Parts: sequence; C-alpha cells; structure tokens
Amino acid sequence: MQKDNQHNNPPRSVEDLGEFGLIHYLTDDVKIRNKSTVFGIGDDAATLDYRDRQVLVSSDILVEGVHFDLSYMPLKHLGYKTAVVNFSDIYAMNGMAEQFFIDLAVSNRFTLEAIDEFMAGVKLACDHYGVDLAGGDTTSSAKGMIVAGTAVGGGEKDKITYRNGAKPNDLLVVTGDLGAAYMGLQILRREKEVFLANPQHQPDLEPYSYIVERQLKPEARKDVVEWLARNNVIPTAMIDISDGLSSEAIHLNQASGLGVQIYEEKIPIDHRTASAAEELNLHPLVAALNGGEDYELLFAVSQKDYPKIKNVPGLSIVGHFTEEPGAFLITKLNEKVPLTAQGWDAFLQRENKK
Amino acid sequence: MQKDNQHNNPPRSVEDLGEFGLIHYLTDDVKIRNKSTVFGIGDDAATLDYRDRQVLVSSDILVEGVHFDLSYMPLKHLGYKTAVVNFSDIYAMNGMAEQFFIDLAVSNRFTLEAIDEFMAGVKLACDHYGVDLAGGDTTSSAKGMIVAGTAVGGGEKDKITYRNGAKPNDLLVVTGDLGAAYMGLQILRREKEVFLANPQHQPDLEPYSYIVERQLKPEARKDVVEWLARNNVIPTAMIDISDGLSSEAIHLNQASGLGVQIYEEKIPIDHRTASAAEELNLHPLVAALNGGEDYELLFAVSQKDYPKIKNVPGLSIVGHFTEEPGAFLITKLNEKVPLTAQGWDAFLQRENKK
Repeated sequence: MQKDNQHNNPPRSVEDLGEFGLIHYLTDDVKIRNKSTVFGIGDDAATLDYRDRQVLVSSDILVEGVHFDLSYMPLKHLGYKTAVVNFSDIYAMNGMAEQFFIDLAVSNRFTLEAIDEFMAGVKLACDHYGVDLAGGDTTSSAKGMIVAGTAVGGGEKDKITYRNGAKPNDLLVVTGDLGAAYMGLQILRREKEVFLANPQHQPDLEPYSYIVERQLKPEARKDVVEWLARNNVIPTAMIDISDGLSSEAIHLNQASGLGVQIYEEKIPIDHRTASAAEELNLHPLVAALNGGEDYELLFAVSQKDYPKIKNVPGLSIVGHFTEEPGAFLITKLNEKVPLTAQGWDAFLQRENKK
Repeated sequence: MQKDNQHNNPPRSVEDLGEFGLIHYLTDDVKIRNKSTVFGIGDDAATLDYRDRQVLVSSDILVEGVHFDLSYMPLKHLGYKTAVVNFSDIYAMNGMAEQFFIDLAVSNRFTLEAIDEFMAGVKLACDHYGVDLAGGDTTSSAKGMIVAGTAVGGGEKDKITYRNGAKPNDLLVVTGDLGAAYMGLQILRREKEVFLANPQHQPDLEPYSYIVERQLKPEARKDVVEWLARNNVIPTAMIDISDGLSSEAIHLNQASGLGVQIYEEKIPIDHRTASAAEELNLHPLVAALNGGEDYELLFAVSQKDYPKIKNVPGLSIVGHFTEEPGAFLITKLNEKVPLTAQGWDAFLQRENKK
C-alpha cells in the first residue's frame, strides 16, 4: 500500500496498523545523511560509527499535562520541539547532534493522522539540523501522550565542553535573548483561560508572534557551535538554558567550584518580551532569570577570547566567574543580590517591595 | 544530608526533592566501570568513547497498564526488566551493552521509596551485566508510570550481526527454552483474578517459580554473545525473542529475503512450561511460538559452524533457512504449517480442531 493512499483515507488508529506497521508507516520516508549512521531504523539497535570522535548521548522525557499542553501546542510543533530540546543538549557539550531516537506512547484518542503530524515535526527538525532519525518505539498509553527522545552526537575530545571547566575571571556569555519563551507561555495560558471562559473568543496572537514562537517552536544553537569552531573559541564550560539564566549559571559556577556575578544591565531581553511582561505586570528580568525554555547557550570563555567575542551580534557578555563562591546579580542600582536556582519568588518579592 | 538518613525517614514524594535533588538522590551511588564511559550522569549529555568499535543504540518505552501490571510486578523487578530488555537488544546485534540511560515519569501516587525500589532494580541489572548507568531524566506524569530506556553498546564492525544476513541452508539456532515467560504471565493473571474475586486468597506461586521468574525477572543472553566470541562463531543474522519464536523467525527470513522451516520437535520447551500450559489448557507450542518476552537469542549460523554448535547445552538447532520464501512449521506429524507473525489464533484454531 502506498503511503499517499493511506493519507487520503480517514485517519485510523494506532491499533489498526499494529506496532510493526506503525513503525514502517512513520519512518518509510526517512533518509540517512550522516556518515556516523551506519544503520538506522529496522533492527534491534542502530549502529553508529564515530571513529576518532567521542560520542555524546542525551535523553529527555516529556509528559502531556506536565511539559506540554496540546490545547495550544500543535502536534507538529511538539514533535519539532521534542527533537530540538534534545539536540540542544548535544550542542551544549560543544558537539554536533547526528542521530535522534524517538519513543512515543499515545492513548487511543490519538489518530494516526495526529501521530503523523507529530512525526512530521520531528522529521522537520531532523532535516533542519542535519540529524538522522535512527530509531524509536511506538506504543499505546493508558492516558495522554508521553514522548521520550534520545539525541546522539559527536565531538572532538579536546573540544567537548563540560559544566565544570570555568576558571576565575572567565567571562560568562549568553547567546540570543532571554525570557521570550516564558512570556510566550504566559500569553498562551492567558488566552486559553479567556477561551475557556468564553469559547466564542478568537485569540489574536499576532502581536505576540515572536514570544509565542519562542515557546512553541524553539530553535537550538547549532549555529553558535559552528561559530565557535570557525573562530577557534573553545568555551571552558557550557550549558543550555532550559531552566532560566539563574539556575544554569549556578550549575556552571557550582560545577566549576567558583562564584559568578551577572550584571542586570547586560542581560539580553528583546523589547517584545519586555512589553509582554509589562502587559502582564511581570518584571522582564524575572522571565529572563527564571523563565526557562529559551534553549540559548550559556558559556564561559577565557579573557583571552574577549576580542573575538566582544562585538559579535547575538553574543552577550553578561558577567564573570569569581574565586569567591556564590552566584550574584549586580542590579542597575549596583546592589548585589544573591541568585538562587529557585530564585523566582525571592526576587519577585524583592521587586514587589520596591 | 546522608542518603541513609533519608531512607530512615518516612518515604517522601518526588516533589519534595525537586528534579535536581531527585537525580542526585537516585544516582549518587553510581560507579563507572567501562572505559567507554568518559563522563556519565551530571552534564547536558554523557560522553562515550568507543574508539575502533562501532556504537549500538537501542531505545524502548514501557507503559504501566500496557507493558506491565504493578499489582503483580514488584518495582525492583520492573527496574531490572526494563534494563535487561534494553541490554538484550544490544546482545542481539552481537555487541556488548556498556551504558544505560533511564527516563522515568511517575504520578504522585509513587513515593520516593517506590522510585528508589525501581532504581535499585535498574542498578542491580547494571551491576550484573557490567553496564554503566550514564544518564536519564525523572519527571512527574498525570497517570501511572512510564519508563523509557536507552542502551548503548559497542561491537566490532566485522562481528555486528543484523537481521538480514542469513543465507540459504544456514541453521536456525535458539538459546535456552521458550514459552516460559508467557506461561508465567498467564499464571500471574490467573492468581490476580482469583485474588480480585476473593481478597483473602493467598496465591501460592511456589510450584510456578521458574516460569514466574522468567516473566518477572528475565535475563538477557550476554553469556551467549561471550560464547560466540570465544568460539569464533559469527552468526549471519540475529534477533532477540521479545515477541515469540514465530514472529522473530519471520523477521529474520524476511529481512534476509529467504524462507525458513522450523521443526516442532526441536523447539526447546521446559517441562515446567509444558506442565503449566497443560494446567491452563493451552498448547505449550503456542506459548513458545507466539508468547514472547523470553529474551532468548535467535540466530542463523553457517553449516560450517554445525560442529561447534551441535552439542552445546542451551543451544538448540530448530530449523534452517531456505531459498523458497515463506516461514513454515514442520509438525511432529510431518505436516507443513505456515507461520505468521500473529499466528497465535490460526494455530490455536488448528490445534483445537484436532
């Protein structure tokens, strides 16, 4: 049977196809592009060949109702995001993602067409980032949708970057801008509540398209890893920002046995993020520090790399590492405020007192 | 805080610890033993180094209520089985499993003590098979428990065995005995029904301990992969038996573009499996052909390896590959019965007519 014929028929359920049929249905158009992928889908395991490079592996699980809400997250976006979030972990090691494995459990409320939508997003992300879809498993669940992704990549031994290599006086650099994905989520939640109260309401997300897209269709910073390689910059420590600048900076300084200071005025916040925050009576700095899901990279570089970094658009030097332990924010008023991984409430309370 | 103190306190929930605390709590006793594990838990990704070997990756997802029933599956066994099932996929490629990544989503009905039990099973399996627990992710779920495991291993390029390499006249060899895990499941289900009807009932599983253990605590055949290496036998095709002999043999013959014939009288069935089948009015052959979850290995070897294989306890030559396509069972009465991947009902009906 041709796949196109299947698509012209009414969507069917997972059970109709059975496990083997489903895997073939979902993956018969998958092409292999990386040399490291010797054998992908279709055996007990995929075979990879990384030769002289080291292999990077990262795994994440996403649960409906906990990590995503399908009432405002289209399935194709969810597939894309699931893949990108995993690729981001490989880039955060200064490596290249080359294979992706997707495990999917769905309840019988999901049609085959719905699963196809999800997989279209996964495949689009794989295409965009040059990653091979090399395996996975599909099954039914008692309730909802659960997605587990595993990304595999490669890196040169001397260039793989851990969290623990920062040195005193190293600069702390962040890519892109922060807080947008969090503000996008707040807008989506607000519109959902309005819709639930009044189903006739048509949400107009157009004014918020930048921040909503940062939430629904985040991108990982493969381009930054490529820039680092081209410019011979090897970060001394690196992490991706999934839980907010504050939490990730603390991971870096604690793993490196150092302290870190971040300057409020240096934190990159897009004007659209700031304006949405103002509309919702939130301090944009809180979104940047604690919002998360930006999938930007946060890294330490030696002072000697300052000339290479300083004028690059999209790279912001936001602070530096210190011998003295502790993570601190230096505010615009030159106050020194301790940062915490769960610093949200503390900082918010402080701001509200002002 | 010492972990031992935590264990002396009443079990707490996942939320009490938070995601970071939980990962540390669950993995602070993990030791690395394989050279290929450069860096395990604690960064964005694990770093592996397989040097001249190829890398094997396999991923599986298990859902409560679909793949396991916690009313008779102790959590420690579930953890053990989750790991072993994934290792088995690596052995089925004629490789060695060396790293394991576990993603766990649990609803708030699970205490920290329960998750610890599950992880104790995972760690026991890792110890037993010499595999490093190298990463994972823990989160909450709306309902039930969902487990996704990824096993990574290594194999020499010339020895990695796919499903598609069998040649005409190659022998079909199966390890151990078949159908026991399936019969164990039937006994557990029967006892559960009796218990639900009469909660005073104390199940006596002692007479069924072999088959129940095959279901609850299966082992993967690392020993067979080691035997093959020691004896310089490289299978031409291999798969592990997760879905029954019939379905797996069909995978091998179809992938290899051949046919296969299996002789009923050669299929290894333990007397305890046969006796449980008799008790439940099932044909033991059906359990062996279609029962699944045995995690034995099924492989093809060239006729030239016959002298090495023929007298080895625990290796049964059950058939051979043919140029003529199709998968057939040759019965004890010398009838030729077609095998199907979902051959259960067809064969059962045939048997019942006799």
